[in-house]
Amino acid sequence: MSINHDRFLSHAAEKMKESAIRKMGAVLASGRDIISFAPGYPAPETFPWEEFGQIAAELFASRDGHVLQYGPTRGYRPLLDAIAGIMGHRGVTTKHDDLLVTTGSQQGLDLVGRVLIDPGDVILVELPAYVGAISAFRNVQASLVGVPQEADGIDLAALDGTWDRLQREGRRVKFLYVVPNFQNPTGLLIGLDKRHRLLEWAERRDVLIVEDDPYRELYFEDSASESDVRPIKADDANGRVVYLSSFSKTLAPGYRVAWIAAPPPLASKFEMAKQAEDLLTGSLDQRVVYEACRRGILDRQLPILRRHYAHKRDVMEQALRREMGGAITWPKPKGGFFLWVTLPSGVSAAGMLTRAIDEGVIYVTGDAFYVNGEGHDTLRLSFSAPTPERIEAGVQRLAATLRGELAARETADAAEGPAAP
Amino acid sequence: MSINHDRFLSHAAEKMKESAIRKMGAVLASGRDIISFAPGYPAPETFPWEEFGQIAAELFASRDGHVLQYGPTRGYRPLLDAIAGIMGHRGVTTKHDDLLVTTGSQQGLDLVGRVLIDPGDVILVELPAYVGAISAFRNVQASLVGVPQEADGIDLAALDGTWDRLQREGRRVKFLYVVPNFQNPTGLLIGLDKRHRLLEWAERRDVLIVEDDPYRELYFEDSASESDVRPIKADDANGRVVYLSSFSKTLAPGYRVAWIAAPPPLASKFEMAKQAEDLLTGSLDQRVVYEACRRGILDRQLPILRRHYAHKRDVMEQALRREMGGAITWPKPKGGFFLWVTLPSGVSAAGMLTRAIDEGVIYVTGDAFYVNGEGHDTLRLSFSAPTPERIEAGVQRLAATLRGELAARETADAAEGPAAP
Repeated sequence: MSINHDRFLSHAAEKMKESAIRKMGAVLASGRDIISFAPGYPAPETFPWEEFGQIAAELFASRDGHVLQYGPTRGYRPLLDAIAGIMGHRGVTTKHDDLLVTTGSQQGLDLVGRVLIDPGDVILVELPAYVGAISAFRNVQASLVGVPQEADGIDLAALDGTWDRLQREGRRVKFLYVVPNFQNPTGLLIGLDKRHRLLEWAERRDVLIVEDDPYRELYFEDSASESDVRPIKADDANGRVVYLSSFSKTLAPGYRVAWIAAPPPLASKFEMAKQAEDLLTGSLDQRVVYEACRRGILDRQLPILRRHYAHKRDVMEQALRREMGGAITWPKPKGGFFLWVTLPSGVSAAGMLTRAIDEGVIYVTGDAFYVNGEGHDTLRLSFSAPTPERIEAGVQRLAATLRGELAARETADAAEGPAAP
Repeated sequence: MSINHDRFLSHAAEKMKESAIRKMGAVLASGRDIISFAPGYPAPETFPWEEFGQIAAELFASRDGHVLQYGPTRGYRPLLDAIAGIMGHRGVTTKHDDLLVTTGSQQGLDLVGRVLIDPGDVILVELPAYVGAISAFRNVQASLVGVPQEADGIDLAALDGTWDRLQREGRRVKFLYVVPNFQNPTGLLIGLDKRHRLLEWAERRDVLIVEDDPYRELYFEDSASESDVRPIKADDANGRVVYLSSFSKTLAPGYRVAWIAAPPPLASKFEMAKQAEDLLTGSLDQRVVYEACRRGILDRQLPILRRHYAHKRDVMEQALRREMGGAITWPKPKGGFFLWVTLPSGVSAAGMLTRAIDEGVIYVTGDAFYVNGEGHDTLRLSFSAPTPERIEAGVQRLAATLRGELAARETADAAEGPAAP
């Protein structure tokens, strides 16, 4: 007879929950014809299959033991050099002591949490914010406090007001977590001037900034350019910023290769935490990614990806306007993978999810991204993975879902009769 | 001017240290001719390069998006099925709810720590114990208490005595961590009868057992057999045992593919912790490993590996006997990668390390494996990676190191003169 395991769990484990995004995986696995706007998967038809195959063939033919062996926790040295080159191109000068390869950016977030957060520490995040960061920080028992966003990203007045209130309550803010470029889930871009002011604010209030930047290469040329995506880290003279980025959205996520650029004393702690967490990032993966950098495959992919995802964004926006224009609103994504929808007043994204699944479409409910319990009338649509045809069909199913939901609500209202005076 | 980052560190991070094994990496990177007996690397000449290359070529040619895409946190389903088959062969019946693919066994240990340990919880470990487990458990602020080993593994009387003492001190033991097969670092094998009694003890004292089993396939046929390596988990009717194993020592560590088999309520928490830690284990890696299972490559490798490592053990033992017989002692390894040396009384493994590096040989000092500060006269030698010729040469260098150390000590004793009465 199995024992009860609950009493063996850590406090952190007691509170762990399944990610809202990854729950959707179970729906997809049901085998029904579901069009998924849920997870932010890159489009596999853009992967440079032939080049990857060629690289792998050469690596295996080399019989170079290091390709399949344990290796340094910091990462494969030539890959670290390539990353330093990429960072230089982004306006950030890095040395070896600043850099660490991580097993996806998710591990970067986890390491940040473990090295910087004690239970109860306050971490400021955007409203809404990336769920993976929320999970990583909650798993080390952070106290997450949200700050609203404006059209050009996080609201600076609200940010300082929040800091001030917390200060008066005697609670210390360790860092602010932001995704400045094409934020997950809103698609918003923080303006350049605001980036500078954020850094000044961090200096003034003595907090760190954790800048998570997986989407920066995917700016859409009709509405953003290279100069709009300059990292906050590029102007960080004093070591205020921990910067995370990844090859998952530009090469492929199956490799699990990403990186952290951080002040050396922190990078060294991230390395020690990673030693105990997974020893090293996959050796073969690092070698393939390095070769894709060295051979110019990454550089060649970027304009292809920008056009690919901009086109899909166009298809989704046109379909949304045609099928649901007027009923819903969203900020136009200038890059990235996501479109952030606000539903008609009073409609709950979670409430209509069962109907959506019945119609054959899924999304992520917006409340999953809000640390303050709001966002029930919002949802995140990913346009990155489905084909244009599937995006069209999916939006039609979403429109049918919303029509059904509104009709059901009217019926319910009518049944209830007029409100008492 | 860079700010001081110390005041941003978590308590856990303040205490994190670099692993003693991975420190040796820096020595190797110096470019000198060093023979390394330090890290437990598998022998790259045993990797099935051609088959791996063939598998990779087919996977890339398939252009199956899943090969490079995000995937389920639990792992690639066909690989989980293959692992269930492996577990069955080891005498353990598992269902899907019991299994989770991890990014190396190191991640398995880390997940165990995060899900089961609160700061201050007592975890019992062997004296000496695997350093990677010590780091993972220390990073969640476990209180590690050591239990001595006998020739057939952990000392049961000492184990229960320790539990009893802790109980009287009001300290709860969450689990016992053991490596029953060819332990890292001692190479010891826990006897079959002792395995049964360990499980009974865990039931009686209401603690869990974390059974870490990376080396079990590498038994040396002159001194151990399949029946000697039966997992404790095989007799676990009540869900007392969390079992970890890996493909790192049988296929290749560069893939970072390992697994946990655990009672479903714990497996589900490990999955949630992994979601926030790295989302998933590398997709390509999982596919290559799965194909290596499916095509019988793994099964074909095992007898080859047993002979390969048994031969290297023989070469090392013969060289040690010839060069240092009488001065040092060790238990004969019946499998695995390691040989555990006790030095002449009073000689410190850490103390003679500089001399060893000067002679061109490195090892891991035994004290790194002891949670109670002992083991200064012990060291771990890995015979797995170097060629037989390098093992011979490395042992000669080690013998020269010891001779130098003993001579220096005599000189120092003579200079000090006779002790005062």
